[in-house]
Amino acid sequence: MTYPLSANTIEKALAAISFNDDGLVPAIAQQHDTGEVLMMAWMNREAVIETLNNGRVCYFSRSREKLWHKGESSGQVQTLKNFRIDCDGDTLLLLVDQEGVACHTGRRTCFYTEVTDEGLKEIAEVEKSPEELYGSSD
Amino acid sequence: MTYPLSANTIEKALAAISFNDDGLVPAIAQQHDTGEVLMMAWMNREAVIETLNNGRVCYFSRSREKLWHKGESSGQVQTLKNFRIDCDGDTLLLLVDQEGVACHTGRRTCFYTEVTDEGLKEIAEVEKSPEELYGSSD
Repeated sequence: MTYPLSANTIEKALAAISFNDDGLVPAIAQQHDTGEVLMMAWMNREAVIETLNNGRVCYFSRSREKLWHKGESSGQVQTLKNFRIDCDGDTLLLLVDQEGVACHTGRRTCFYTEVTDEGLKEIAEVEKSPEELYGSSD
Repeated sequence: MTYPLSANTIEKALAAISFNDDGLVPAIAQQHDTGEVLMMAWMNREAVIETLNNGRVCYFSRSREKLWHKGESSGQVQTLKNFRIDCDGDTLLLLVDQEGVACHTGRRTCFYTEVTDEGLKEIAEVEKSPEELYGSSD
Protein backbone atom coordinates (compact mmCIF):
# COMPACT_ATOMS: atom_id res chain seq x y z
CA MET A 1 0.00 0.00 0.00
CA THR A 2 1.01 3.60 -0.51
CA TYR A 3 0.89 5.88 2.50
CA PRO A 4 -0.74 8.04 3.55
CA LEU A 5 -4.02 6.33 2.71
CA SER A 6 -6.72 8.77 1.63
CA ALA A 7 -8.64 10.62 4.33
CA ASN A 8 -11.75 8.93 2.97
CA THR A 9 -10.30 5.42 3.44
CA ILE A 10 -9.07 6.25 6.92
CA GLU A 11 -12.52 7.58 7.79
CA LYS A 12 -14.09 4.31 6.57
CA ALA A 13 -11.64 2.27 8.64
CA LEU A 14 -12.37 4.31 11.77
CA ALA A 15 -16.11 3.92 11.20
CA ALA A 16 -15.70 0.14 11.00
CA ILE A 17 -13.84 -0.09 14.30
CA SER A 18 -15.68 -0.44 17.61
CA PHE A 19 -13.48 1.24 20.18
CA ASN A 20 -14.19 0.17 23.77
CA ASP A 21 -15.34 2.40 26.61
CA ASP A 22 -11.76 3.61 27.03
CA GLY A 23 -11.57 4.49 23.33
CA LEU A 24 -9.23 1.58 22.62
CA VAL A 25 -9.13 -1.48 20.37
CA PRO A 26 -6.73 -4.44 20.68
CA ALA A 27 -4.33 -4.91 17.75
CA ILE A 28 -2.52 -8.17 17.05
CA ALA A 29 0.79 -7.84 15.19
CA GLN A 30 1.72 -10.78 12.96
CA GLN A 31 4.86 -11.08 10.84
CA HIS A 32 3.48 -10.91 7.29
CA ASP A 33 5.60 -13.62 5.67
CA THR A 34 6.22 -16.18 8.41
CA GLY A 35 2.85 -15.90 10.16
CA GLU A 36 4.48 -15.56 13.56
CA VAL A 37 2.28 -13.74 16.06
CA LEU A 38 4.56 -11.15 17.60
CA MET A 39 2.56 -9.18 20.15
CA MET A 40 -0.77 -7.64 21.05
CA ALA A 41 -1.14 -4.01 22.04
CA TRP A 42 -3.83 -1.33 21.97
CA MET A 43 -4.73 1.52 19.62
CA ASN A 44 -6.91 4.58 20.01
CA ARG A 45 -8.31 6.60 17.10
CA GLU A 46 -5.18 8.69 16.84
CA ALA A 47 -2.94 5.60 16.73
CA VAL A 48 -5.03 4.14 13.89
CA ILE A 49 -4.79 7.41 11.97
CA GLU A 50 -1.04 7.68 12.61
CA THR A 51 -0.50 4.09 11.45
CA LEU A 52 -2.56 4.46 8.25
CA ASN A 53 -0.92 7.78 7.48
CA ASN A 54 2.67 6.63 7.93
CA GLY A 55 2.69 2.89 7.25
CA ARG A 56 4.59 2.48 10.52
CA VAL A 57 2.70 0.92 13.39
CA CYS A 58 1.76 3.25 16.23
CA TYR A 59 -0.01 1.98 19.35
CA PHE A 60 -1.46 3.71 22.40
CA SER A 61 0.47 2.97 25.57
CA ARG A 62 -1.99 2.39 28.38
CA SER A 63 0.71 2.71 31.04
CA ARG A 64 2.16 5.95 29.65
CA GLU A 65 -1.23 7.15 28.39
CA LYS A 66 0.16 8.43 25.11
CA LEU A 67 0.87 7.39 21.52
CA TRP A 68 3.61 4.80 21.26
CA HIS A 69 5.39 4.84 17.93
CA LYS A 70 6.64 1.26 18.08
CA GLY A 71 10.42 1.29 17.91
CA GLU A 72 10.77 4.98 18.71
CA SER A 73 13.30 4.25 21.43
CA SER A 74 14.41 0.72 20.48
CA GLY A 75 14.60 1.04 16.70
CA GLN A 76 12.51 -2.14 16.39
CA VAL A 77 9.90 -0.63 14.09
CA GLN A 78 6.97 -2.41 12.48
CA THR A 79 6.30 -1.60 8.84
CA LEU A 80 2.62 -2.08 8.02
CA LYS A 81 1.83 -4.55 5.22
CA ASN A 82 -1.90 -5.09 5.82
CA PHE A 83 -4.47 -3.74 8.21
CA ARG A 84 -7.46 -5.99 8.91
CA ILE A 85 -10.58 -5.55 11.04
CA ASP A 86 -12.53 -8.45 12.51
CA CYS A 87 -16.18 -9.34 12.00
CA ASP A 88 -17.51 -7.24 14.85
CA GLY A 89 -14.94 -4.48 14.51
CA ASP A 90 -13.50 -4.89 17.98
CA THR A 91 -10.09 -6.40 17.16
CA LEU A 92 -7.43 -5.51 14.58
CA LEU A 93 -4.92 -7.76 12.86
CA LEU A 94 -1.82 -5.97 11.60
CA LEU A 95 0.40 -7.81 9.16
CA VAL A 96 3.79 -6.22 9.64
CA ASP A 97 7.43 -6.49 8.79
CA GLN A 98 9.09 -6.48 12.21
CA GLU A 99 12.57 -5.00 12.35
CA GLY A 100 14.59 -7.06 14.83
CA VAL A 101 12.53 -8.10 17.83
CA ALA A 102 8.98 -7.25 18.90
CA CYS A 103 9.29 -7.92 22.63
CA HIS A 104 10.77 -5.51 25.14
CA THR A 105 12.62 -8.49 26.63
CA GLY A 106 14.62 -8.77 23.41
CA ARG A 107 12.80 -11.83 22.11
CA ARG A 108 11.32 -11.95 18.62
CA THR A 109 7.80 -12.54 20.01
CA CYS A 110 6.12 -11.69 23.30
CA PHE A 111 4.49 -15.16 23.37
CA TYR A 112 7.50 -17.11 24.59
CA THR A 113 5.99 -18.80 27.65
CA GLU A 114 4.35 -22.11 26.84
CA VAL A 115 2.19 -24.21 29.11
CA THR A 116 3.43 -27.79 28.76
CA ASP A 117 2.80 -31.13 30.43
CA GLU A 118 5.74 -30.31 32.71
CA GLY A 119 4.73 -26.77 33.64
CA LEU A 120 5.72 -23.44 32.05
CA LYS A 121 8.57 -23.39 29.58
CA GLU A 122 10.37 -20.56 27.74
CA ILE A 123 10.39 -21.31 24.03
CA ALA A 124 12.20 -18.25 22.58
CA GLU A 125 15.72 -16.97 23.13
CA VAL A 126 16.68 -13.42 23.95
CA GLU A 127 18.11 -12.11 20.67
CA LYS A 128 18.93 -8.59 21.82
CA SER A 129 19.62 -7.57 25.38
CA PRO A 130 17.29 -4.92 26.82
CA GLU A 131 20.41 -2.78 27.31
CA GLU A 132 21.08 -3.06 23.59
CA LEU A 133 17.51 -2.01 22.91
CA TYR A 134 17.00 0.81 25.39
CA GLY A 135 18.40 2.94 28.04
CA SER A 136 14.85 2.80 29.38
CA SER A 137 11.81 0.73 28.41
CA ASP A 138 10.08 0.86 24.99
CA MET B 1 -0.16 -32.56 25.13
CA THR B 2 -2.21 -34.96 27.21
CA TYR B 3 -5.30 -33.57 28.88
CA PRO B 4 -6.19 -32.84 31.56
CA LEU B 5 -2.94 -31.11 32.46
CA SER B 6 -1.98 -31.57 36.09
CA ALA B 7 -3.62 -29.32 38.67
CA ASN B 8 -0.14 -28.05 39.49
CA THR B 9 0.52 -26.97 35.88
CA ILE B 10 -2.88 -25.33 35.58
CA GLU B 11 -2.21 -23.47 38.83
CA LYS B 12 1.13 -22.22 37.44
CA ALA B 13 -0.55 -21.07 34.24
CA LEU B 14 -3.25 -19.19 36.16
CA ALA B 15 -0.62 -17.54 38.36
CA ALA B 16 1.24 -16.34 35.24
CA ILE B 17 -1.87 -14.69 33.74
CA SER B 18 -2.84 -11.12 34.61
CA PHE B 19 -6.61 -11.01 34.34
CA ASN B 20 -8.03 -7.50 33.89
CA ASP B 21 -10.41 -5.70 36.25
CA ASP B 22 -13.29 -7.72 34.78
CA GLY B 23 -11.40 -10.96 35.44
CA LEU B 24 -10.74 -11.49 31.72
CA VAL B 25 -7.75 -11.94 29.43
CA PRO B 26 -7.77 -11.71 25.61
CA ALA B 27 -6.93 -14.94 23.77
CA ILE B 28 -5.80 -15.03 20.14
CA ALA B 29 -6.58 -18.26 18.26
CA GLN B 30 -4.13 -19.19 15.51
CA GLN B 31 -4.33 -22.26 13.27
CA HIS B 32 -1.31 -24.28 14.42
CA ASP B 33 -0.02 -25.45 11.04
CA THR B 34 -0.87 -22.64 8.61
CA GLY B 35 -0.29 -19.72 10.99
CA GLU B 36 -3.61 -18.14 10.07
CA VAL B 37 -4.97 -15.90 12.82
CA LEU B 38 -8.58 -16.99 13.23
CA MET B 39 -10.14 -14.86 15.95
CA MET B 40 -9.69 -13.14 19.26
CA ALA B 41 -11.98 -13.72 22.22
CA TRP B 42 -11.82 -13.52 26.01
CA MET B 43 -11.22 -16.01 28.81
CA ASN B 44 -11.84 -15.89 32.52
CA ARG B 45 -10.17 -18.22 35.06
CA GLU B 46 -12.82 -20.88 34.56
CA ALA B 47 -12.40 -20.80 30.76
CA VAL B 48 -8.64 -21.27 31.14
CA ILE B 49 -9.16 -24.20 33.51
CA GLU B 50 -11.79 -25.74 31.23
CA THR B 51 -9.50 -25.39 28.20
CA LEU B 52 -6.45 -26.90 29.92
CA ASN B 53 -8.54 -29.71 31.36
CA ASN B 54 -10.23 -30.72 28.13
CA GLY B 55 -7.89 -29.69 25.33
CA ARG B 56 -10.88 -28.03 23.66
CA VAL B 57 -10.93 -24.24 23.66
CA CYS B 58 -13.46 -22.60 25.94
CA TYR B 59 -13.90 -18.81 26.06
CA PHE B 60 -15.98 -16.51 28.22
CA SER B 61 -18.76 -14.80 26.29
CA ARG B 62 -18.96 -11.17 27.39
CA SER B 63 -22.37 -10.70 25.78
CA ARG B 64 -23.91 -13.83 27.28
CA GLU B 65 -21.83 -13.57 30.48
CA LYS B 66 -21.06 -17.28 30.62
CA LEU B 67 -18.58 -19.89 29.49
CA TRP B 68 -18.58 -20.40 25.74
CA HIS B 69 -17.40 -23.83 24.69
CA LYS B 70 -16.37 -22.87 21.17
CA GLY B 71 -18.36 -24.93 18.70
CA GLU B 72 -20.96 -26.09 21.22
CA SER B 73 -23.78 -25.02 18.93
CA SER B 74 -21.98 -24.83 15.57
CA GLY B 75 -19.74 -27.90 15.81
CA GLN B 76 -16.75 -25.72 14.79
CA VAL B 77 -14.58 -26.75 17.74
CA GLN B 78 -10.99 -25.72 18.38
CA THR B 79 -8.64 -28.46 19.53
CA LEU B 80 -5.82 -27.00 21.60
CA LYS B 81 -2.28 -27.65 20.34
CA ASN B 82 -0.33 -25.09 22.37
CA PHE B 83 -1.17 -22.54 25.02
CA ARG B 84 1.17 -19.55 25.27
CA ILE B 85 1.27 -16.54 27.60
CA ASP B 86 2.86 -13.23 26.65
CA CYS B 87 5.68 -11.37 28.40
CA ASP B 88 3.46 -9.44 30.79
CA GLY B 89 0.84 -12.15 31.17
CA ASP B 90 -2.03 -10.10 29.81
CA THR B 91 -2.59 -11.82 26.45
CA LEU B 92 -2.82 -15.49 25.45
CA LEU B 93 -1.93 -17.12 22.15
CA LEU B 94 -3.71 -20.41 21.50
CA LEU B 95 -2.41 -22.62 18.72
CA VAL B 96 -5.41 -24.64 17.67
CA ASP B 97 -6.74 -27.02 15.09
CA GLN B 98 -9.90 -25.32 13.92
CA GLU B 99 -12.67 -27.59 12.73
CA GLY B 100 -14.37 -25.89 9.76
CA VAL B 101 -14.68 -22.16 10.27
CA ALA B 102 -13.86 -19.90 13.21
CA CYS B 103 -16.14 -16.97 12.38
CA HIS B 104 -19.86 -16.85 13.16
CA THR B 105 -20.33 -15.42 9.64
CA GLY B 106 -19.17 -18.75 8.22
CA ARG B 107 -15.74 -17.51 7.15
CA ARG B 108 -12.58 -19.33 8.14
CA THR B 109 -11.24 -16.25 9.96
CA CYS B 110 -12.90 -13.27 11.62
CA PHE B 111 -10.28 -10.95 10.07
CA TYR B 112 -11.77 -10.76 6.59
CA THR B 113 -12.07 -6.97 6.23
CA GLU B 114 -8.94 -5.38 4.85
CA VAL B 115 -8.17 -1.68 4.62
CA THR B 116 -6.80 -1.08 1.12
CA ASP B 117 -5.85 1.89 -1.03
CA GLU B 118 -9.40 1.76 -2.41
CA GLY B 119 -11.25 1.49 0.92
CA LEU B 120 -12.45 -1.59 2.81
CA LYS B 121 -12.43 -4.94 1.03
CA GLU B 122 -13.67 -8.40 2.02
CA ILE B 123 -10.86 -10.91 1.55
CA ALA B 124 -12.45 -14.18 2.70
CA GLU B 125 -15.40 -16.09 1.33
CA VAL B 126 -18.30 -17.45 3.35
CA GLU B 127 -17.59 -21.19 3.49
CA LYS B 128 -20.61 -22.23 5.54
CA SER B 129 -23.84 -20.33 5.77
CA PRO B 130 -24.86 -19.17 9.24
CA GLU B 131 -28.00 -21.30 8.77
CA GLU B 132 -25.76 -24.32 8.22
CA LEU B 133 -23.88 -23.43 11.40
CA TYR B 134 -26.65 -22.51 13.80
CA GLY B 135 -30.25 -22.12 14.42
CA SER B 136 -29.08 -19.22 16.59
CA SER B 137 -25.66 -17.57 17.04
CA ASP B 138 -22.56 -19.36 18.39
